[in-house]
Amino acid sequence: MVRVSDLDASLDFYCDGLGLSVISRRDYEQGRFTLVMLAAPADRESVITSDAPQLELTYNWDPEDYRGGRNFGHLAYRVEDIYATCEQLMEKGIVINRPPRDGRMAFIRSPDNISIELLQNGEALPIREPWRSMSNTGEW
Amino acid sequence: MVRVSDLDASLDFYCDGLGLSVISRRDYEQGRFTLVMLAAPADRESVITSDAPQLELTYNWDPEDYRGGRNFGHLAYRVEDIYATCEQLMEKGIVINRPPRDGRMAFIRSPDNISIELLQNGEALPIREPWRSMSNTGEW
Repeated sequence: MVRVSDLDASLDFYCDGLGLSVISRRDYEQGRFTLVMLAAPADRESVITSDAPQLELTYNWDPEDYRGGRNFGHLAYRVEDIYATCEQLMEKGIVINRPPRDGRMAFIRSPDNISIELLQNGEALPIREPWRSMSNTGEW
Repeated sequence: MVRVSDLDASLDFYCDGLGLSVISRRDYEQGRFTLVMLAAPADRESVITSDAPQLELTYNWDPEDYRGGRNFGHLAYRVEDIYATCEQLMEKGIVINRPPRDGRMAFIRSPDNISIELLQNGEALPIREPWRSMSNTGEW
């Protein structure tokens, strides 16, 4: 579970950007929070019947400070084409903090600074521009 | 990925306590860190061939401060018998911060304060003592 301070911005990031799908969404009027369960494309079908992993977003209706700590490191997802994924994220204005210079690994951050590792499924892709020359931005 | 300040204490907690298994362990002399990949019992077999979820522990050989933040919430695992799991954890001296009074849900914390939710697989178990009367301890 990760806490999000802006649910729309977070759904835009995790779904439209990263490609996850909304599995369920519940608003809790009394507790004043919303829970959204997300799943990766490969887990979408199996999540209903089995133990496929899900990412839970908690949106508390009353604002809180969601800075990060050091004990949690990052989430990680394998992707089919790490260059295509990063291109799509950049088109949405998302910074690739650690570009996939090696055709294998990239890091981005969610709107609430959750670090997310993207890993090329299987073998690394051939190294190529513009990725090869792209520098790091900030921390991840 | 979660960072751990004491690898032995963490393996004791995650493996001997929670029941996860070590899938791989690599020491990186140059970077001065150790990575340990863990998987839940139900994922142990499939983790080699498929995309079953894993928990990565990063142990940096040079000490750091691993306090938590608020953007990350918790990890969550389904268990076959939440009372048996909590009993086993208590026998190891692990505090059940939120006991499974409802036969359905409990929260504990790792040695580095990562919050972990335990969820009864399927229907909630019948409510019973000593769980019913057990109070909360600290935060989770």
